[in-house]
Amino acid sequence: MKAGRRALVMDDIGRRITSRALVAGDKVPSIRSCAARLGISPSTVVEAYDLLVADGVIEARRGAGFFVADKPQPFAVAETGPQLEREVDPLWVARQSIDTGEEKQKPGCGWLPADWMPVSSLRKAMRSMSSARIDLLTNYGSAKGETGLRRFLSRRLHDQGLAADPDQVLLTGSGSQALDLVCRMLLKPGDTVLVDDPCYFNFQALLRAHQVAIKSVPYTALGPDLAKFEAALTEHRPRLYLTNSALHNPTGATMSAPTAHRLLTLAEIHDLVIVEDDIFSDFEPDVSPRLASLDGLERVLRVGSFSKTLSASFRCGYITARPDWIEALTDLQVATNFSGPSPMVASLLYSVLTDGGYRKHLDALKTRLVACRGDAIKRLGELGFSPWIEPRGGFLLWCELPGQHDATELARAALQQGLVLAPGNVFSVTQNMGSFMRFNVSQMRDPGCYETLDRLLTGTLNT
Amino acid sequence: MKAGRRALVMDDIGRRITSRALVAGDKVPSIRSCAARLGISPSTVVEAYDLLVADGVIEARRGAGFFVADKPQPFAVAETGPQLEREVDPLWVARQSIDTGEEKQKPGCGWLPADWMPVSSLRKAMRSMSSARIDLLTNYGSAKGETGLRRFLSRRLHDQGLAADPDQVLLTGSGSQALDLVCRMLLKPGDTVLVDDPCYFNFQALLRAHQVAIKSVPYTALGPDLAKFEAALTEHRPRLYLTNSALHNPTGATMSAPTAHRLLTLAEIHDLVIVEDDIFSDFEPDVSPRLASLDGLERVLRVGSFSKTLSASFRCGYITARPDWIEALTDLQVATNFSGPSPMVASLLYSVLTDGGYRKHLDALKTRLVACRGDAIKRLGELGFSPWIEPRGGFLLWCELPGQHDATELARAALQQGLVLAPGNVFSVTQNMGSFMRFNVSQMRDPGCYETLDRLLTGTLNT
Repeated sequence: MKAGRRALVMDDIGRRITSRALVAGDKVPSIRSCAARLGISPSTVVEAYDLLVADGVIEARRGAGFFVADKPQPFAVAETGPQLEREVDPLWVARQSIDTGEEKQKPGCGWLPADWMPVSSLRKAMRSMSSARIDLLTNYGSAKGETGLRRFLSRRLHDQGLAADPDQVLLTGSGSQALDLVCRMLLKPGDTVLVDDPCYFNFQALLRAHQVAIKSVPYTALGPDLAKFEAALTEHRPRLYLTNSALHNPTGATMSAPTAHRLLTLAEIHDLVIVEDDIFSDFEPDVSPRLASLDGLERVLRVGSFSKTLSASFRCGYITARPDWIEALTDLQVATNFSGPSPMVASLLYSVLTDGGYRKHLDALKTRLVACRGDAIKRLGELGFSPWIEPRGGFLLWCELPGQHDATELARAALQQGLVLAPGNVFSVTQNMGSFMRFNVSQMRDPGCYETLDRLLTGTLNT
Repeated sequence: MKAGRRALVMDDIGRRITSRALVAGDKVPSIRSCAARLGISPSTVVEAYDLLVADGVIEARRGAGFFVADKPQPFAVAETGPQLEREVDPLWVARQSIDTGEEKQKPGCGWLPADWMPVSSLRKAMRSMSSARIDLLTNYGSAKGETGLRRFLSRRLHDQGLAADPDQVLLTGSGSQALDLVCRMLLKPGDTVLVDDPCYFNFQALLRAHQVAIKSVPYTALGPDLAKFEAALTEHRPRLYLTNSALHNPTGATMSAPTAHRLLTLAEIHDLVIVEDDIFSDFEPDVSPRLASLDGLERVLRVGSFSKTLSASFRCGYITARPDWIEALTDLQVATNFSGPSPMVASLLYSVLTDGGYRKHLDALKTRLVACRGDAIKRLGELGFSPWIEPRGGFLLWCELPGQHDATELARAALQQGLVLAPGNVFSVTQNMGSFMRFNVSQMRDPGCYETLDRLLTGTLNT
């Protein structure tokens, strides 16, 4: 049995290395924390770590703990073991959110309920697509993606003050994939990337996959803390800054115009490239200052998708950038995906976006969200949660927990009760957000979720 | 005007660096070859290279030529210039094939004509999908992809002698993306990967994007040359071998059982991982020995997709591998794409694959291809092309050119005549395949394409 528990530890570390949650030189969880997490004795962890050292997977540094060896050999430890409870890391929320069935409530997830989407419009578009041109249904798309959708996006960006030709729009398989392509073009292992603290949890997972160093700057209600931003540029010389300037994830804050202007000046001085992930822009009540527009796409790339307002099932995102970068990104997409999103899907989205109902759909979403947000703020307030700010739009609400509660522990306990939450530290590189929680106000319509939260806060956690 | 020609050179080198066709330490094309390719004087190239050296983009090494600097700064040279004719590199065929409209014939492309696909079955599935469950149309899919399709694939793999549970199947956005994920999991920059000579051109583009060294082994009609394969393992210590064992691209050859067995023994000895890109397997007249099956998925990963037999527009591929690798690949897919293929698309494919017509569709394709292949061999033979082998199935035909013709020059000239060809060297790491051409027998039904080839061989090239 002891061998089985040792294998648990070895398998756990091996998986983290294989998935690049841990890379060469990273500190391995301490013996104490590993033992506590897996519910086994520290001496068993010591034995397992010794075996990993013998296998050359990790190495001990006197007085400093254990570290992933420079040339990790995960295959030696990748025995198939029982499915472990995952550490509550940035991938935890993602996997819980997308892998948990409809039977669980998900105030921690990052999307609207399915029945808020323009379903009849999607169904109609699918029916009409079933008699579409044969090549749309069977062929690879062009390297940059369907022209109609790129033209539409170009027009919309112009309307929002961003002059980008259709040739400066590259369609991708998703917003996440767009970010991934940008990282591939601009980064090499060992580079440093700046993110916000807190920031969208998957930024961390993505950047880990690119084997870059991640540094963060505290996020304020007006954007990143500028003094600390400047200090970070000087100290860390990052290649890239990855952010949401409008309706920031997880805080819901929006960057102010002076902050945006100052940020671009600093970027120019320090030769920093900025990626503006604009995935929530369609939820804004009015267009806020945007880095890509102010900068004229000189050193800012803008990324978007249709997953939040139309369908996350259709898998289509886009990048707007300088023509030479778009050309390089197109080559990279061909090299790694052969072509971009499904031409059938791109045509479908194009027809839904232009059938006249999209604007109305957005208006209805916004109205609905105002009501949901008010309700969530009131009910969460009754439980002692305090919103960090009241966002201008969107569905995210970043709240401080009442009392001394720890968000990660609350999320673990909530999962046992059928509630998927998004604890603050999964959004935080510094791990300073343990007293915060990100709520999705559209996913809290069932009063049962507040009752569960109440029970967890008042009772279960004290056992 | 001279400044414009200098800019051409600088832009060309800058783009190669940005797209990672050239990476730090790579030799830049010689002054002579660059001048010849762009049709400008060597002295202009010298001036442009001097400017690039001054910018720190490339560096001169006495007696050895010019090399990409360790920290290239492509932004300095990435001025937007006129669109250059692309070098005939591995990306050339890809971009020409997918970006050229239907007005051009494409004997160089890697897919069947649109009207060979089961279009009425696809249309029917789309119509019925238009009334599918709301979550299939709007939600992110689960991290590993739709269960129905994974179960179907697992059953099919069992029938082909490969025992893989549904949990050992990960759905991905495409076959190419599946390969990309595998590279991400197993490779780090500077690793060495082994491919065949010749091999599928996009393997090279993909591996360049991963910044690894590429070594090749000559491919024979029975698989890779085993003596040279063993020598390469000893000399280069590659981490990975990437191949198609059945209906190899571009040769159409199939690995023999003894070769497969010996290969796996060598892989075991040298701790080599093998990726078997099985994208053409459904075109086989009978199931040939497969590395993944022989190995029992210990050190072989198998990749497939539906792009060649159902639809390239639908974007769905898959990976079959050991459970721990599937788990790590799933995490990587979440980190870089958030989720896998569209659940709507996966359901659509599942219904087409199980509606009873897929087997009949494959039989019809095979019958049709036998006739096309015979016809192409006869007509190409009349022009002096000799097939390297006659493949057992599929649509590829690897031919030696008549006389002293150079395949790259022929492809360039053919493009002017509206014919997209796939010249041998885009498939060759060693660039030793200049006298070969890959033809797609399904895309040569128009006799005009033979007439054009004839004119190019007999006349145009002499001007």
